[in-house]
Amino acid sequence: MTSYEEEIQEHRLETFQTRRPTVFELEEILFEIIPVLDHGFIRLIDYMGNDSAIVQAARVSYGRGTKKVSEDRGLINYLIRHRHSTPFEMCEIKFHVKMPIFIARHWLRHRTASVNEYSARYSILDREFYIPDPLQLASQSLQNKQGREDVLEGEEAARVLQILKEDSARCYDHYEEMLNERDDGTPLDPNRHGLSRELARMNLPVNCYTQFYWKIDLHNFMHFLSLRGDQHAQYEIRVYAQKMIEILKRWVPFTFDAFMKYRLEGVPLSRDALKVLKKILKGEKITQETSGLSKGEWRELESMMEVTLERES
Amino acid sequence: MTSYEEEIQEHRLETFQTRRPTVFELEEILFEIIPVLDHGFIRLIDYMGNDSAIVQAARVSYGRGTKKVSEDRGLINYLIRHRHSTPFEMCEIKFHVKMPIFIARHWLRHRTASVNEYSARYSILDREFYIPDPLQLASQSLQNKQGREDVLEGEEAARVLQILKEDSARCYDHYEEMLNERDDGTPLDPNRHGLSRELARMNLPVNCYTQFYWKIDLHNFMHFLSLRGDQHAQYEIRVYAQKMIEILKRWVPFTFDAFMKYRLEGVPLSRDALKVLKKILKGEKITQETSGLSKGEWRELESMMEVTLERES
Amino acid sequence: MTSYEEEIQEHRLETFQTRRPTVFELEEILFEIIPVLDHGFIRLIDYMGNDSAIVQAARVSYGRGTKKVSEDRGLINYLIRHRHSTPFEMCEIKFHVKMPIFIARHWLRHRTASVNEYSARYSILDREFYIPDPLQLASQSLQNKQGREDVLEGEEAARVLQILKEDSARCYDHYEEMLNERDDGTPLDPNRHGLSRELARMNLPVNCYTQFYWKIDLHNFMHFLSLRGDQHAQYEIRVYAQKMIEILKRWVPFTFDAFMKYRLEGVPLSRDALKVLKKILKGEKITQETSGLSKGEWRELESMMEVTLERES
Amino acid sequence: MTSYEEEIQEHRLETFQTRRPTVFELEEILFEIIPVLDHGFIRLIDYMGNDSAIVQAARVSYGRGTKKVSEDRGLINYLIRHRHSTPFEMCEIKFHVKMPIFIARHWLRHRTASVNEYSARYSILDREFYIPDPLQLASQSLQNKQGREDVLEGEEAARVLQILKEDSARCYDHYEEMLNERDDGTPLDPNRHGLSRELARMNLPVNCYTQFYWKIDLHNFMHFLSLRGDQHAQYEIRVYAQKMIEILKRWVPFTFDAFMKYRLEGVPLSRDALKVLKKILKGEKITQETSGLSKGEWRELESMMEVTLERES
Repeated sequence: MTSYEEEIQEHRLETFQTRRPTVFELEEILFEIIPVLDHGFIRLIDYMGNDSAIVQAARVSYGRGTKKVSEDRGLINYLIRHRHSTPFEMCEIKFHVKMPIFIARHWLRHRTASVNEYSARYSILDREFYIPDPLQLASQSLQNKQGREDVLEGEEAARVLQILKEDSARCYDHYEEMLNERDDGTPLDPNRHGLSRELARMNLPVNCYTQFYWKIDLHNFMHFLSLRGDQHAQYEIRVYAQKMIEILKRWVPFTFDAFMKYRLEGVPLSRDALKVLKKILKGEKITQETSGLSKGEWRELESMMEVTLERES
Repeated sequence: MTSYEEEIQEHRLETFQTRRPTVFELEEILFEIIPVLDHGFIRLIDYMGNDSAIVQAARVSYGRGTKKVSEDRGLINYLIRHRHSTPFEMCEIKFHVKMPIFIARHWLRHRTASVNEYSARYSILDREFYIPDPLQLASQSLQNKQGREDVLEGEEAARVLQILKEDSARCYDHYEEMLNERDDGTPLDPNRHGLSRELARMNLPVNCYTQFYWKIDLHNFMHFLSLRGDQHAQYEIRVYAQKMIEILKRWVPFTFDAFMKYRLEGVPLSRDALKVLKKILKGEKITQETSGLSKGEWRELESMMEVTLERES
Repeated sequence: MTSYEEEIQEHRLETFQTRRPTVFELEEILFEIIPVLDHGFIRLIDYMGNDSAIVQAARVSYGRGTKKVSEDRGLINYLIRHRHSTPFEMCEIKFHVKMPIFIARHWLRHRTASVNEYSARYSILDREFYIPDPLQLASQSLQNKQGREDVLEGEEAARVLQILKEDSARCYDHYEEMLNERDDGTPLDPNRHGLSRELARMNLPVNCYTQFYWKIDLHNFMHFLSLRGDQHAQYEIRVYAQKMIEILKRWVPFTFDAFMKYRLEGVPLSRDALKVLKKILKGEKITQETSGLSKGEWRELESMMEVTLERES
Repeated sequence: MTSYEEEIQEHRLETFQTRRPTVFELEEILFEIIPVLDHGFIRLIDYMGNDSAIVQAARVSYGRGTKKVSEDRGLINYLIRHRHSTPFEMCEIKFHVKMPIFIARHWLRHRTASVNEYSARYSILDREFYIPDPLQLASQSLQNKQGREDVLEGEEAARVLQILKEDSARCYDHYEEMLNERDDGTPLDPNRHGLSRELARMNLPVNCYTQFYWKIDLHNFMHFLSLRGDQHAQYEIRVYAQKMIEILKRWVPFTFDAFMKYRLEGVPLSRDALKVLKKILKGEKITQETSGLSKGEWRELESMMEVTLERES
């Protein structure tokens, strides 16, 4: 265990007095390692604010309110429904995350978070690689170019796992050979110089694990979770997002409920889809051809509503 | 006192147990009103992180370190000197601020903070206006179009104060008359409708006070303070920035020291100014004409170095 | 007319050869003053990109495509429906805008644009104030604290206009008196100093006009327009947004269509509202009490669907 | 050549009439491939604004100016020296860039640009890997953990190149085998399914090439170039930044000059370093011990000034 990890573990034992908004359910899991995938984790490092802090900030804008808990919940529902995002920016959360590089590349495409990532220019990466669980070895979807389909089986699955394991191991062996340096800083061969770290790292595949500190405000956190916790997100990123959704629930339970109701499990309705529903509710005749929707949109609306839309008057 | 202010005051009495990084010197002043100008204030509402949190985030990037306090200070100096900004983004601070509208307009031009401002579309503004202290009634600088010069005196000063007070009072009287509404919601004249709040407010001058919640990360906070705490900033904004610089010192003392040394009290040297200094240190002959600096830059460098630069070989 | 305005007018006469994406419909209105309110305007200053530039950027991400115009439209619809925002960030638009200060304060709360505003610390503001058209003198809504209701009439309206005109004029007279400076820089009274500009401006009411350059990317522009072009936005800001929506239509017609269909005229459906619609479409019995919706949400859904929702099985 | 590349090449032949600010020196290189490293490139795709557009935006803030070219240059110098960043945000530049993944990861850490990157979830990556020129095979610096030292020679260099080439080739072969798909979409083995693209890509090392569209405003572009064009930046990222600095010079020549003079070739002086220089210029006695500087800072200042600082009175 490295020294800064020990330092964090020490924090787990210390407690302080504070007058800041404090969330008992988060304190319980602070600094705890929550495993994700084969070598990854998320670990809550710090947070600022709670449901009441959102309400308090909103009241500065929208005027003087009362302070019954039931009204707090109602105000948070109102803020989420009407896209008032600034009160949610008043809360922050900070994680320590470890994930494969190819997943981190998606994750860090979100520019609204603050990040400190482990630098392989400076330090040597650990010998840790993501090897999928055989149940996750999905074949390419033919419908959806970004999608997965049936799980590979038998020999084909075995061959994939063999490739991933052997290539990872060989690349890492060669990384060490080029560096000419062991984990403890001693050279493999005292008669060689060793390639600089910033160059040697280029031989590592993107299933190699990286780690970073990641801090984001609650508004942008929810936006991130609505994209990465969605069923269309790649499995390997979704499992991280799902663990974070559980933490969201502990942190700000009223906001979590509104987020689920109006965002993650809500749906957008286009102008033309709205027209179709209005007609049906009025008992009018409608077919795809007369609906103003394309065939794809018609199918999507049927699937959203779980019924056949075509109606005879 | 409005109900949400009472709520905040109640927080002052409550304390909680936390395992988060906690700064005793900030806890002491949490929720306290710190007066600025005649009716304004700043009030610390929340914070996240401390000097150690910066070091911890930096160590994730730059590798495994030790944890002696002396090394924390050195690492923070290094980060500030070499413009490594991301570890400072890992800390956040949140204020409740009250200031005149014309100052708030400058303040809110900084886009890196989160803001919830009192809405005069929704609520009625208080009868509070900034009237400068007579010592601040400076005349227009003739050199610097953005600057002040000598303080106005006698009749001229008295006339300015009279104008500001009378116009503020009259505009507010008319605001109430147009609203046709008292502070408690009852109408002045039950036979009139009253103009909507979002329109009536347009009669108020920009020395009227507004208030807002303001949250920013430590990196952007220091950038803000280096601009608004500078001697070229308008007096009325600088007094707010200076109170916040005192809070910075309580919050992150190592970072504060580095900030003062390398940023607020440091200076940038242009390529050509650097060349001039090198020549002088080598004992070479130099004049403004041969220096590569314009007359203005030459004067600025002399004023920075507090000497005459011209040298005979 | 000030010199930089003359400069812009000169641009209208010059044309250049470029290989950049160019939109004929925007070139036609470039640099033209489009009046808004009594003294305000918007003026298109520059733009970057067009519908094809969005498609081109998207194809880098999503792979090799064809280039039929019909497929460009389909891809843009897809991107808007699935919230792929980055290709729209690849286009930029820049305006010169003049509007009352109280509206500019809302406008500039959006932090995703770049702004250069006229500085009253440095220069003297013009004698121009927003005085509403009598048809816009709405009374305060009793239902909605941010809303307007019936238009004021007769004496009450006349009194409001009188107040606004007289207070504006008097405040500006006093502004000039405090400055002791005419528009051409000569003093009113050569025996007085004059208060500095950065202080004298504080006597001006927020219906005074300001102006600024404003540049934003297409993604954030659409987000801005969906909020400020909405019927709940204050009339005085909405009229600016509506002029910009017309410019959006000229600039990127495919994106404009998708924006109207899926965003401005689309609606969000909460998880529980979706459940209600599904039940109705399946012919199930439902009442507000059994729906999972609050009374307010039930009413809102009825109003969205323009029918009574309660159904007997 | 893929179809969207053909499309871009076609643009090279078309020209349009525009009234927008147009820069002849940029038009000349628009859409042209500028090679960097062994398989990478940068290609200018679009731009908005020029030196005059900066001046025009600044004049809205700072008042009415004249329009002599000499004054434009002076105003731009002033803006850069005094850190007035907003007028530079009024210009934008857009590139198509191809670079190795490990370099792209640094590049994309800058969150102020807009990005559309090639998606390996959706499409198949090309068989292209960065293999350094033998002159760039530097050994690890012992002083500076992020640095390089002497170039590897003879057998050691040969072995590094062999590893990089063989591992890249083998990993790509296995990538194709897992995908079970050729470039033209036909399967290698019609009896197998093939692993989904989003998973198969994880076997590729980070010296594999990726590509993206990248758009940034001029203020943030200069900040980026000052960090990535600096001599401490890794060679492989610096070569891209240097090509872009050449494009900056073509685009906004006045801004480029000011940027070089005050930023890229200027230096910051800490409060204590300033004190030391003042003392020396006044002829006072000084040693490192009495200077207030640490040994490291003393050395750094000596190296900056290219003289021995210790002085006898």
